[in-house]
Amino acid sequence: MRAAELVRKKRDANPLTREETFFLIEQYTRGDIPDYLMAAWLMAVYFRGLTPEETADLTEAMMRSGRVLDLSELPGAKVDKHSTGGVGDKTSLILAPVAAAAGLVVPMISGRSLGHTGGTLDKLEAIPGFNVRLTLADFRAALREVGCALIGQTEELAPADRKLYALRDLTATVESVPLITASILSKKLAEGIDALVLDVKVGSGAFMKTLEDATRLAESLQSIGTRMGKRVVALLTDMDQPLGRAVGNALEVAEAVETLKGEGPDDLRALCRDLTAWMLHFGAAASSVEQERARYDELIRSGAAAEKFRRIIARQSGDPRVVDDPSRLPQARHREDFPAPDAGYLARIEAEQVGWASMALGAGRERLEDSVDPAVGLILRKKVGEKVERGEPLATLFANQPDRLAEARRWLASAFQIAPTPPPPRPLVWNTLS
Amino acid sequence: MRAAELVRKKRDANPLTREETFFLIEQYTRGDIPDYLMAAWLMAVYFRGLTPEETADLTEAMMRSGRVLDLSELPGAKVDKHSTGGVGDKTSLILAPVAAAAGLVVPMISGRSLGHTGGTLDKLEAIPGFNVRLTLADFRAALREVGCALIGQTEELAPADRKLYALRDLTATVESVPLITASILSKKLAEGIDALVLDVKVGSGAFMKTLEDATRLAESLQSIGTRMGKRVVALLTDMDQPLGRAVGNALEVAEAVETLKGEGPDDLRALCRDLTAWMLHFGAAASSVEQERARYDELIRSGAAAEKFRRIIARQSGDPRVVDDPSRLPQARHREDFPAPDAGYLARIEAEQVGWASMALGAGRERLEDSVDPAVGLILRKKVGEKVERGEPLATLFANQPDRLAEARRWLASAFQIAPTPPPPRPLVWNTLS
Repeated sequence: MRAAELVRKKRDANPLTREETFFLIEQYTRGDIPDYLMAAWLMAVYFRGLTPEETADLTEAMMRSGRVLDLSELPGAKVDKHSTGGVGDKTSLILAPVAAAAGLVVPMISGRSLGHTGGTLDKLEAIPGFNVRLTLADFRAALREVGCALIGQTEELAPADRKLYALRDLTATVESVPLITASILSKKLAEGIDALVLDVKVGSGAFMKTLEDATRLAESLQSIGTRMGKRVVALLTDMDQPLGRAVGNALEVAEAVETLKGEGPDDLRALCRDLTAWMLHFGAAASSVEQERARYDELIRSGAAAEKFRRIIARQSGDPRVVDDPSRLPQARHREDFPAPDAGYLARIEAEQVGWASMALGAGRERLEDSVDPAVGLILRKKVGEKVERGEPLATLFANQPDRLAEARRWLASAFQIAPTPPPPRPLVWNTLS
Repeated sequence: MRAAELVRKKRDANPLTREETFFLIEQYTRGDIPDYLMAAWLMAVYFRGLTPEETADLTEAMMRSGRVLDLSELPGAKVDKHSTGGVGDKTSLILAPVAAAAGLVVPMISGRSLGHTGGTLDKLEAIPGFNVRLTLADFRAALREVGCALIGQTEELAPADRKLYALRDLTATVESVPLITASILSKKLAEGIDALVLDVKVGSGAFMKTLEDATRLAESLQSIGTRMGKRVVALLTDMDQPLGRAVGNALEVAEAVETLKGEGPDDLRALCRDLTAWMLHFGAAASSVEQERARYDELIRSGAAAEKFRRIIARQSGDPRVVDDPSRLPQARHREDFPAPDAGYLARIEAEQVGWASMALGAGRERLEDSVDPAVGLILRKKVGEKVERGEPLATLFANQPDRLAEARRWLASAFQIAPTPPPPRPLVWNTLS
């Protein structure tokens, strides 16, 4: 089998066999197929797409390029959630403890902030002492003891995805639904899960800006995951404005803790309730999603969810007292309000601009090797649809370096739109594919 | 300017500016853009194509990646011919001496045999002593002294083409009309020519199998060459059966010599006459192509063409006596007839199969680093349309290693088609684009 012939085959819109796809991925991971051949194949896939069979084969080949965890000795269903990324999305910090409190096993492997989007690992590391770098053996032990552990990607799981993703990023081949599908699912399925809840974001702050594009990705993820023998649901959720009010690592942890205690912003609460209900539904014998929403409420109300978060934090060497005293989280030295330039109704908050404002303050990173400041970021004082008076604060900025405030202010100036009448309401969950 | 952005631009069907195309080619030639980025760009070009402006910019950038000869101090028009390659195509060996005998300067840089197609350099090297490796200084001196020199590609001319062609070959991106156009023209225009005659082959033995594909390539070559300020004609000529009767290096030299003396097969004579007439037309002040056909006849009849060939051979250290005594060319030790399996009319001779038969005998090469046997090959005893009796020889094979005859015979068995009635005539020149 010659790799160049496989490139030609895909170029000419002929599907590769399972053996051919495995050959390509195995040889590439091993370094026996050079980057230029893979780059040509990626661009051919960008134009020709992959059949569902090819996408499933690719996902499996990438998953099997490294270790695949076998968690079958642990009691309880293994369920995870994956989000395609957005601004202010701290749902993992809430739903993971709730689901674990309900008896599920949640083996969550997460990513870092990049550009305008946040990452779960950076948020967790805002908790003093929290260690996201467990070995796979310790990850498994933590799952047995606590029911949930949250760690970063390791070299051992799906190495083909890391190598391919880096090449896609360099060759303008990121935006391909089957390649995104295989990338997401290969990593998640290597965690040894039985079921997966997917949060596919749509809107100005999301990777997929239109409902049509987001739906195509959600359908692909749902159908390929199902084809691979997992229970999978994909929720299409709004990312046209940031989720919740806090954007920035420690600020988001504080908001997650509030939400775990039954408070927090309405949209964040509602979305966590929906996503968690699907996780619980997949883990339970015969419950409806609606019944599981009630169970979510009860786990919050009883304090079981907050207690599980304390245990997760403690197991990963963090300070669990932040759950009761958020002032133990890193605090920024400077805060400053951003006033409304006009009176009216808040018509839009461009999530992407808010993300860049937060990055400008130091909460995010331009390149993966940059470091982040856990304390900085911003809190939205108004959300879309609310009435504002001129001069009233739309947001509060939290900074450690005052010279960074000017750039953040410039981003915010282009983020808010005020109109004389309230905007039409936009759903939080656009669609649920199961 | 970031190369990845240029890949994205092409991927999204947006044309690159002249500066961007030059950036890409200059940086790639220098090694500052990696192969994987160029491979992604090549595949994007395969799918999106290039505009005429982009194709001309690419041609010029590739041409300027190395030295561009300036032959303006030589008197006379500088005219060359390029063929897209076929089986039995020895026209260069005939038209170059005729055109030089007419006072043109013919700076011909040629290629080698590969796969089923022959190459002018291997044919020339069948002449004892002939040296195709002149330095550019010596090439220029030979042009001044004799009016014609035939050499191989050098590192100094269009290095970007060599690097890009190797990558295209490895990444299934050879078959792209704008990329083929830029590859051919960048090399030819670096020779410092004023005008170019293109012989675009069409048929089973050609790179372009259909008239439609060949026409697209011919139109692209003609229009881009013209856009770059050269006089260019493209003739679409038949390569459904081999050209002439001889296939194999020394055998083809002998047939070229016959043709230079006014004999040789009809199709070869007719095509050389047409191609040369266009070269002479481009080099003359105000002559018609038809007038130049008569001039071709006169240069052959007078012996001026054969005398010029002797001088070209002598200037490049070869033995000019082969022109008068072809038995001085390398001779194969074994010859064997290939008999007709049936009586009737020869309906087809698959040029590609004949090419593989000749390669099986050792006349061609599978990889560029292989060597060829100058003496071996075959002579067609019948051409398409001729009547044959059962058992009458269709071809004579010339071999040095008798154990190679079996494979050559197998190729020939699938090359000939005999039918009860003569086939409809097929034109030699399908179209002329000027």
